[in-house]
Amino acid sequence: MERLRKQMEFIVEVDKVKNIFRQTYLADANRKENDAEHSWHLALMAVLLKEYSNEEVDLAKVVPMVLLHDLVEIDAGDTYAYDEAGAETKRERETKAADRIFGLLPQDQCIWFRELWEEFEAYETPEAKFAHVLDNCQPLLLNDASDGRSWAEHGVKKSQIYKRNEYTSEGSVEIWEYMKELIDKHIRLGHVMDE
Amino acid sequence: MERLRKQMEFIVEVDKVKNIFRQTYLADANRKENDAEHSWHLALMAVLLKEYSNEEVDLAKVVPMVLLHDLVEIDAGDTYAYDEAGAETKRERETKAADRIFGLLPQDQCIWFRELWEEFEAYETPEAKFAHVLDNCQPLLLNDASDGRSWAEHGVKKSQIYKRNEYTSEGSVEIWEYMKELIDKHIRLGHVMDE
Repeated sequence: MERLRKQMEFIVEVDKVKNIFRQTYLADANRKENDAEHSWHLALMAVLLKEYSNEEVDLAKVVPMVLLHDLVEIDAGDTYAYDEAGAETKRERETKAADRIFGLLPQDQCIWFRELWEEFEAYETPEAKFAHVLDNCQPLLLNDASDGRSWAEHGVKKSQIYKRNEYTSEGSVEIWEYMKELIDKHIRLGHVMDE
Repeated sequence: MERLRKQMEFIVEVDKVKNIFRQTYLADANRKENDAEHSWHLALMAVLLKEYSNEEVDLAKVVPMVLLHDLVEIDAGDTYAYDEAGAETKRERETKAADRIFGLLPQDQCIWFRELWEEFEAYETPEAKFAHVLDNCQPLLLNDASDGRSWAEHGVKKSQIYKRNEYTSEGSVEIWEYMKELIDKHIRLGHVMDE
């Protein structure tokens, strides 16, 4: 029972990610989204959009990867995509968080989750690239549905979105084409600043 | 692009499940949980607890199943586990919801999601039984962490919990043993009514 107890304690501990709020609004624009909701959405997208990955991906890796990719934010907090000061300390804060949080699991699962998280962060494998496509596309869909509320509030520039999506087409050319259409639309609408 | 557009519209439509609130409180007892958070938690549990399923299960089925199992509540609303009046009309409300919501997807994915949802509801395959173990265990973990707040508010009886979990041991003997320990604890604490 000791192994199951450890797993259950981890499962209860990570409930905290439901209180880590992001800068993106829900599609109805009424409130901001939290990490658990975001991760649920990515997992569903992985299942539905797998066919658009440039390279063949294994959902048995992509799905756990997106389900756990934000758990480090329980300790490290959410770093907004366009927060440059936060970005400087992000890696250090998140590594410490990964030690503690994944460390609650039995050793084999601790190693498994840690490796999946490191793989996501390293952005090199087909699975990590596809997970990043989803991670970048989902807030864009919500921003589109909520009339660019979060972009407008933060004065986000076209160049910032393009910088963040520098490698998105490496994961999926087709999804990146779809995303570019949305970005262009919100530049025209004045929700994203064009320089 | 027509296929991708349909998929993306579905993905944005189901954002609404983040506003379908359940009767269970988060572990910190501060607010109730919504269906997207709940579904994220089940998917993570599926990945971590697969080893406890009585029968071999295919995560490529269990994970999408739990990710989508509550989408019908976007139209049908959440029916509380111990709401007898609601239970009478649940099937009709949810079937209509499934027609509309899964109907937004391209036909192949509409059929796939509809079949997974029906399989979950039918409670017969190893995957459906294991998904129900998770669906029943997760709120119990949260009730335990939040000192039985939801049970106490609804005056829930031991017999109701046992009735709801009539088939849980068919999915996982070990997880049901763990759950029984928690139920007994909360009977002793007076959060669950013993008759």
